[in-house]
Amino acid sequence: MITELVSVGTEILLGNIVNTNSAYLSEKCAQLGLSVYYQTVVGDNEERMKATIRTALDRSDIVILTGGLGPTEDDLTKEVTAEVMGIPLVEDPHSRELLEAYMEQYKNNNSQRRITANNYKQAMVPQGALVLDNHNGTAPGLIIEKDGKTAILLPGPPNEMKPMFEEEVFPYLRRKQPEIIYSQMIKICSIGESQVADEIRDLIENQTNPTIAPYAKTGEVHLRITAKAENEKDCRKLIKPVVHELKGRFGKNIFSTDEKKTLEEAVIDMLKDQGLTLALAESCTGGAVASRIVNVPGASEVFGHGFVTYSNRAKRKFLGVKKSTLKTHGAVSEKCAKEMAKGGCFVAKSDICLSITGIAGPGGGTEEKPVGTVFMGCCYNDKVIVREFHFTGNRMKIREQTTAHALAFLRECMLEGVTRKE
Amino acid sequence: MITELVSVGTEILLGNIVNTNSAYLSEKCAQLGLSVYYQTVVGDNEERMKATIRTALDRSDIVILTGGLGPTEDDLTKEVTAEVMGIPLVEDPHSRELLEAYMEQYKNNNSQRRITANNYKQAMVPQGALVLDNHNGTAPGLIIEKDGKTAILLPGPPNEMKPMFEEEVFPYLRRKQPEIIYSQMIKICSIGESQVADEIRDLIENQTNPTIAPYAKTGEVHLRITAKAENEKDCRKLIKPVVHELKGRFGKNIFSTDEKKTLEEAVIDMLKDQGLTLALAESCTGGAVASRIVNVPGASEVFGHGFVTYSNRAKRKFLGVKKSTLKTHGAVSEKCAKEMAKGGCFVAKSDICLSITGIAGPGGGTEEKPVGTVFMGCCYNDKVIVREFHFTGNRMKIREQTTAHALAFLRECMLEGVTRKE
Repeated sequence: MITELVSVGTEILLGNIVNTNSAYLSEKCAQLGLSVYYQTVVGDNEERMKATIRTALDRSDIVILTGGLGPTEDDLTKEVTAEVMGIPLVEDPHSRELLEAYMEQYKNNNSQRRITANNYKQAMVPQGALVLDNHNGTAPGLIIEKDGKTAILLPGPPNEMKPMFEEEVFPYLRRKQPEIIYSQMIKICSIGESQVADEIRDLIENQTNPTIAPYAKTGEVHLRITAKAENEKDCRKLIKPVVHELKGRFGKNIFSTDEKKTLEEAVIDMLKDQGLTLALAESCTGGAVASRIVNVPGASEVFGHGFVTYSNRAKRKFLGVKKSTLKTHGAVSEKCAKEMAKGGCFVAKSDICLSITGIAGPGGGTEEKPVGTVFMGCCYNDKVIVREFHFTGNRMKIREQTTAHALAFLRECMLEGVTRKE
Repeated sequence: MITELVSVGTEILLGNIVNTNSAYLSEKCAQLGLSVYYQTVVGDNEERMKATIRTALDRSDIVILTGGLGPTEDDLTKEVTAEVMGIPLVEDPHSRELLEAYMEQYKNNNSQRRITANNYKQAMVPQGALVLDNHNGTAPGLIIEKDGKTAILLPGPPNEMKPMFEEEVFPYLRRKQPEIIYSQMIKICSIGESQVADEIRDLIENQTNPTIAPYAKTGEVHLRITAKAENEKDCRKLIKPVVHELKGRFGKNIFSTDEKKTLEEAVIDMLKDQGLTLALAESCTGGAVASRIVNVPGASEVFGHGFVTYSNRAKRKFLGVKKSTLKTHGAVSEKCAKEMAKGGCFVAKSDICLSITGIAGPGGGTEEKPVGTVFMGCCYNDKVIVREFHFTGNRMKIREQTTAHALAFLRECMLEGVTRKE
């Protein structure tokens, strides 16, 4: 089925935000076997929205719209879509109830928030539409079907849109598909995007069914193997030898074959399996690695202590880094990373400690240690492995890459048996 | 002038890559005063490209296309645009020379690269087009003008497209503009999106020039005031009373009027102004607040120490939270937040310490303290202010909101004079 993604929002047209929703939805549609022919972004302008939605419904079977469902005057997606499809808006009592409950909660707890008249606009829905509850915000999603066309309206904020898509829209779209599409994910870390592309070029060049699609993420590459067949069993049969081949090629660098498992989850699972506790000693990442670890519910089983030792004083005081090390080698050095990791293990009484110290820029680089130079240390049982990395990009990009590679490095250290009990 | 951005590439429609080019170009166009009404993504398909480019040239004055200029069979942007505009392709000797020089260099350095016949396709240009040299790749850019319409063709890889845009396209477009556009940003925290919308409804309803556009971010609302006039001075004159009015309405909740300044930068500026050092004691945010503080280059001047005390043991050991507090009140309590903030100040020897402890879920909630309950403490000079928050959504969203509100809370405490030296 031909599918079109329409993102509504002047903030996208002004470049205030990057349209990550379209990338996310495109990937999901590919997984569902839907052919996305167009992505369109239109501003919060009634006439242009009308034209865009009309064209999209004309040339596509399914139109997925994101954004413009909020309570402000500018939020017109629902109103315009209903008008284009010729369906009146009616109040949905359930949505109104949810909205009131949500706002009530805010009112009780935070005197600065109050229900305003325009919030109620969010409880109006096109007659006969399927209403999708929003558990993470106030604007419900909608599925509208008419004359063989489907319009799916989702809230713009990714943290509202994604759970709604996964819980309700994905199963709905799967049921619409005549053929079974089945896919298997393989998630890789510790190898770069172009090396992965090189390693699978022969497979991709000759592929028909199943297909392999690579997705580059920061510090990770995901390969999705997708098969089409009459039933799931046949799909699995088609996929099996390809997965086997890829496992042979990427071996230990595969950290997950589970769609939903993140790198931090994989790391926490390994820690749990080996019965180890983790401490973190971060400088340039400033707590970002700890924050990713804490993304995982139940992280407290293996992670209790993190140190953000951004200053030299903190490195000395809390991790016991030697004054002479800082003086002779500097805070961004193999020796400092080593002492940070050792110190972290000792003071947190943890089995393992990962340390990160580097230059995120824009200042602070030298010829010898340019911006992007990062040292990571991993300590277990008084042994420390240190590795030097060099990242490129602006401060934000260097810190993101450092964070992702820190998790991969920790995983590698555990795989290489550094932490295996003797 | 009405402008449209067209990105060509099936890899975007499959979600393999995020379309960052459009965000970049949109921001540049806004800066140039060009009105971007649409962004469109189309795959490497001749028919659909033809339709898309025809529509774009129909409804817009300037169409900026990215991608599809490479040497492969799939790269059709130039061919299709020339056909739609009715202009024949001819070989550009200068481009052929550059191409040969570039390929020669690669041949010498990398045996895997060689000039292929289809590389020469890149030296063909629409007759009369302005050719833009590509210093970072092989595909030249093109500016084609005909019948009052302008098509600008740029290579897809951002590291080729961006320098070409800045060096050649930006000055070209600036020369085309008859009117000046000027905008002023106002960034607000500590008030919700719909309350902001309420407060400015009257202004937005009657606006013509300048206009106010609200952007909701997690824990922040941004208002962009944009004026059009003959020169920058007139623009400023139009904007001034609106900015004055908004300052009157939102007062202290405005944390910046600078486009680029983030909430964390505003907080760091306040700390610097007051000559204060900051420590952080984080539980449920797990280092995310520290990581946002460290986003700011030069944060080390005011921030040296962060504690991620995710376990009770860490709260006791590093921050001196009392065993009895944890036993009687629990880790998520006013008393614990208070002791964490006090302890953080003491051990880090900092002037001020912000503490955060809460339940991010999905587990751990009780009737009395449901998931989303967060206590934050701010300690200065042995005094602690504690505030209770209730956030909703999934674990990720609760943690994101907590992080944003933690910065806003810290700012409020500083504003309210908690930290003012006596």
